[in-house]
Amino acid sequence: MRSDKLGDTLLPKRLALPIFASDALSSVAYAPDEIMLMLGLAGGAFVTTHSWQVAIGVILVMVVVVASYRQNVRAYPSGGGDYEVATVNLGPRAGLTVASALLVDYVLTVAVSISSGVLNAATAIPSLRGHEVQAAVGLVAILTAMNLRGVRESGKAFAVPVYAFIVGIIGMGLFGAFQFVTGNLGQAETAKYDLVPEEGQGLVGIAAAFLLLRAFSSGCAALTGVEAISNGVPAFQKPKSRNAATTLLMMGTLSITMLGAIVWLGRETGIKVTDDPATQLTLNGQPVGPSVVPDTVLGQLAKAIFGGFTPGVVFVSIVTGLILILAANTAFNGFPVLGSILAKDGYLPRQLHTRGDRLAFSNGILILAAAAALLIVAYQAKVTSLIQLYIVGVFVSFTLSQSGMIRHWNRHLKTETDPKERARMRRSRVINAVGALMSATVLLVVLVTKFQAGAKYAIAAMAVLFLLMLGIRRHYSRVNDELKLADDETPLLPSRVHSIVLISKLHKPAMRAVAYARATRPTVLEAVTVDVDPDETAALQAEWSRREIPVPLKVLSSPYREITRPVIDYVRSIRSGSPRDVVVVYIPEYVLGRWYEQILHNQSALRLKARLLFTPGVMVASVPWQLRSSEGRADDSVFDGPVGGSVRRGPR
Amino acid sequence: MRSDKLGDTLLPKRLALPIFASDALSSVAYAPDEIMLMLGLAGGAFVTTHSWQVAIGVILVMVVVVASYRQNVRAYPSGGGDYEVATVNLGPRAGLTVASALLVDYVLTVAVSISSGVLNAATAIPSLRGHEVQAAVGLVAILTAMNLRGVRESGKAFAVPVYAFIVGIIGMGLFGAFQFVTGNLGQAETAKYDLVPEEGQGLVGIAAAFLLLRAFSSGCAALTGVEAISNGVPAFQKPKSRNAATTLLMMGTLSITMLGAIVWLGRETGIKVTDDPATQLTLNGQPVGPSVVPDTVLGQLAKAIFGGFTPGVVFVSIVTGLILILAANTAFNGFPVLGSILAKDGYLPRQLHTRGDRLAFSNGILILAAAAALLIVAYQAKVTSLIQLYIVGVFVSFTLSQSGMIRHWNRHLKTETDPKERARMRRSRVINAVGALMSATVLLVVLVTKFQAGAKYAIAAMAVLFLLMLGIRRHYSRVNDELKLADDETPLLPSRVHSIVLISKLHKPAMRAVAYARATRPTVLEAVTVDVDPDETAALQAEWSRREIPVPLKVLSSPYREITRPVIDYVRSIRSGSPRDVVVVYIPEYVLGRWYEQILHNQSALRLKARLLFTPGVMVASVPWQLRSSEGRADDSVFDGPVGGSVRRGPR
Repeated sequence: MRSDKLGDTLLPKRLALPIFASDALSSVAYAPDEIMLMLGLAGGAFVTTHSWQVAIGVILVMVVVVASYRQNVRAYPSGGGDYEVATVNLGPRAGLTVASALLVDYVLTVAVSISSGVLNAATAIPSLRGHEVQAAVGLVAILTAMNLRGVRESGKAFAVPVYAFIVGIIGMGLFGAFQFVTGNLGQAETAKYDLVPEEGQGLVGIAAAFLLLRAFSSGCAALTGVEAISNGVPAFQKPKSRNAATTLLMMGTLSITMLGAIVWLGRETGIKVTDDPATQLTLNGQPVGPSVVPDTVLGQLAKAIFGGFTPGVVFVSIVTGLILILAANTAFNGFPVLGSILAKDGYLPRQLHTRGDRLAFSNGILILAAAAALLIVAYQAKVTSLIQLYIVGVFVSFTLSQSGMIRHWNRHLKTETDPKERARMRRSRVINAVGALMSATVLLVVLVTKFQAGAKYAIAAMAVLFLLMLGIRRHYSRVNDELKLADDETPLLPSRVHSIVLISKLHKPAMRAVAYARATRPTVLEAVTVDVDPDETAALQAEWSRREIPVPLKVLSSPYREITRPVIDYVRSIRSGSPRDVVVVYIPEYVLGRWYEQILHNQSALRLKARLLFTPGVMVASVPWQLRSSEGRADDSVFDGPVGGSVRRGPR
Repeated sequence: MRSDKLGDTLLPKRLALPIFASDALSSVAYAPDEIMLMLGLAGGAFVTTHSWQVAIGVILVMVVVVASYRQNVRAYPSGGGDYEVATVNLGPRAGLTVASALLVDYVLTVAVSISSGVLNAATAIPSLRGHEVQAAVGLVAILTAMNLRGVRESGKAFAVPVYAFIVGIIGMGLFGAFQFVTGNLGQAETAKYDLVPEEGQGLVGIAAAFLLLRAFSSGCAALTGVEAISNGVPAFQKPKSRNAATTLLMMGTLSITMLGAIVWLGRETGIKVTDDPATQLTLNGQPVGPSVVPDTVLGQLAKAIFGGFTPGVVFVSIVTGLILILAANTAFNGFPVLGSILAKDGYLPRQLHTRGDRLAFSNGILILAAAAALLIVAYQAKVTSLIQLYIVGVFVSFTLSQSGMIRHWNRHLKTETDPKERARMRRSRVINAVGALMSATVLLVVLVTKFQAGAKYAIAAMAVLFLLMLGIRRHYSRVNDELKLADDETPLLPSRVHSIVLISKLHKPAMRAVAYARATRPTVLEAVTVDVDPDETAALQAEWSRREIPVPLKVLSSPYREITRPVIDYVRSIRSGSPRDVVVVYIPEYVLGRWYEQILHNQSALRLKARLLFTPGVMVASVPWQLRSSEGRADDSVFDGPVGGSVRRGPR
């Protein structure tokens, strides 16, 4: 886990907070915007009246969720997170559901965080406007390259930007509160405009309630990332669970404070946000037109509070962008880790489990980057659209893990006798029950309010991943059954070994293959060549006898000038003649230093090998000849097979 | 060569003509258009005055080229074509130049023929207009699929469309001539318009002469495909050379007749063609605007001559499209054949030479299709633009082969004594000399007139191919030198064999690997497992001793949970301890039926194998275990290695 990366040092709380909380804290960069955007569909007055109500609702959920997860980290200090809780307590299908939701969520974390980062950065760098998609995809590419190179994030590198963000936002909030108390609170740039309702947005009754619910579920994007600490408990210093729980509390407090402050001050400074400022913002009844492009809520707030103090605005803009990039980076770390766990349980290809296999990690990183980039392009880096997909996965995960915790406490209560411990368990169970109920309710609200808007795609993606992983697991189970040894099974030893050395030319690699084959002293040894060109074959035979090579040379005819079929047929004829023999085919292989050289050689040999492997009773022995260009390349992982052939990493 | 495909039957002239002449005859579908388009830049009157002059010039060149190539086919009946003539007589560099030119030409044949086919088809199917690029790329895809499937073209399938085309065009010409003589010759749809000159096109002096030269070099597109017969001499019935020469004559006569007839009748029916009809065609001084989209020359001619007889128009349109498709198809056949010859000489990867290797052919076909499609899209299926690239390669090839023939006759005249034969040779030499001179002149004209317009790209492509093939050949030479056996060299026999069986789990494939390794009776035999998971390793050791397997099990530690490094290090330690031993590593491999199953297994094994091959003194033996899903798949070429994994062909 992360302990490997930090060189096996455990983290004190002050370093663990920035590392695990960046995702959760960064959501305050977009959650207030989403609340106000959604409410703004009913006009500026609606926002002013209800924004604090929605914020209180979100804060309430956050209190419950944080309290619930403190129980999780106490009960499961191994760092398995929601996946482990669900699998252990609710069964593998539930665990797989959580895994699918988490995988989808990682992709969306990258997409949302980067898109929001670009939006926020545009406050300080206005030339980004109109090029958000390019900038976002570019950032994804940079993060991908950094992670492929294996840049080690040290705890300190993480700490500075996150604490800067905390200081910046809290500081801005305190400033703003002070200005409010002294009556000096500035107004936002959009304060002078009116926000007109979109057509058809009734301000009363069911429609208003529905809009409030939609705003509430958008605001719940503030809860993304809360569960990250439950994955990282092993990295804490002892006592691990207690420290993790405390860090959770600190993170929750900071989150709630920042969210509340931003929404309150946004209200007091008259901030307006809308997806369509050109027509929805009016000045004296006239739409303002395309020249007015408001900043994000944080951007407008910074400008309003810091007034003429531009360094403050730039500072807030920069640290917001930084923490969002760090949040995206946690996904780049978490995705392969989750992949490794799933591979261990047989849900993903096994090679993802060997953590030392940089290649497998690289594949995971590339898949994540590609999927995030695709989403960014498809939704044009619009945070509002991406959020619709984001929240459902998070709350699926919450609901299942909290339900799992209820089961956990039930199970333990059956066997626990100590009354103090039992009381603690019962209290935890209540907290988790409230958490489960709350999460389920929010999940329902999210599904109802956001299904059409985009949640259906997230759910579809989760379903596809679920079925894929289930299929992979079934495959591995079936293969395991097929390969299982019976208790007293001992395989028959082949009686004789019939070795064939494949010769195309009489050169050094061929002679080495003959020598190695002779060294193994088989029962029968012969050299075999395929007659592709009569002149070449005759020359080969002449040279073979001239050198008096003590191995007989057999010539196979080939009417179509191919190599594979004659050899396969010959091998089969040997096998049908003596079914208890094992046939070993020795094939010389050239080993070259450069990848483009490799496609010039060995192709026919590779094809023959692949076909031979289908023939029962046959072994294929590759006799390599290292050409000069291959010297010094033994440690390059560039030759780690076709899939990773182009990902180059330094030697360990 | 083609004799394989036709089941080793030799072709009579009447079947050879359609097969080898389709490319050359099809050029009459676009050569007249190009002549008149180029001349039309100077206005309608310029076309009327000079079109027949340019046509005469092209016809003259064609007479010379056909006469020259009749000497080629007599001297080189082996079917090597221009490449052989240039290599044998002028040296390998000249041959490589011809090869590069021919490869580029094949791509352009496809692009030009298909684009022209779509243009001509639009006469009968006007809805194609505006969708030319899509239709053209679609046709390329269809041809690719057909050739990948290995659809066998029988001689008869070729003959019908080609003869239909000949009949159609000659018939149309005769009709037109008859109408002209009786004074009934209709007028084309564009006859009523005036064709205004593009600005700045002077009608006099050097500018006029230059335009005439440009039109002439465009018209020389009619010569593309003439050399095809020289590649196909072995397919003729005996006497091969004479029949080939006669067929060339027939083809030349038909070509000249059709070209001349079309240009003459085009003049008499007042056909006008232009790339920009909306502004260049005027009616009573007013540009006609975008509603008028004239057909190709053949289209307009058919409509003018057949008047109200629409079936005639449709017939001409269809057979023109068909012969152009057949011309493109000859490129799909010729490209891999040329690739095979070049591979034999070491200029291309060797696997292209084994003709029975459908996979190599498939790769060649796919490369050709991709390049042609790219060109079509890049030039928006505009025949006029593509022609600019087309002609230069053809005339490079002509010039070099004709020059080679001069050398050929010189060489033979030194040794030939029979006076009649000498006279014949000297006559042939004169013809080839005229051919070489004419070709060189046209090449110069083409270079001068078309360099900026596009020939530079063709030349650049040829240069790139030339250098690439030279590089490949150099590589093969260097490797051959490195691998050559000295005359009295005998390799040392290794004294001992140290066998290692790689165990990850105790299942059937592992047991088989142990059994096979034991059967070879090595000096030292041990089983090796890597400690990735302490629990699993302990269980494996326990099971190993419980079953009393007579091979010692060694456990290698692995701090990073990877397999490759510990095994490599262990193997190296064995080798440094006993440098004269050969180490054989037995690796169990799963053999599965479906490709998507294959990525779930063997990945770590493949990576280990690749690294082991870099270690001197090591052999890798794959012990396959065929899972049930692999049964019956031994003959599928779908498993022919990673490159061709997805190209599925029926079993032979």
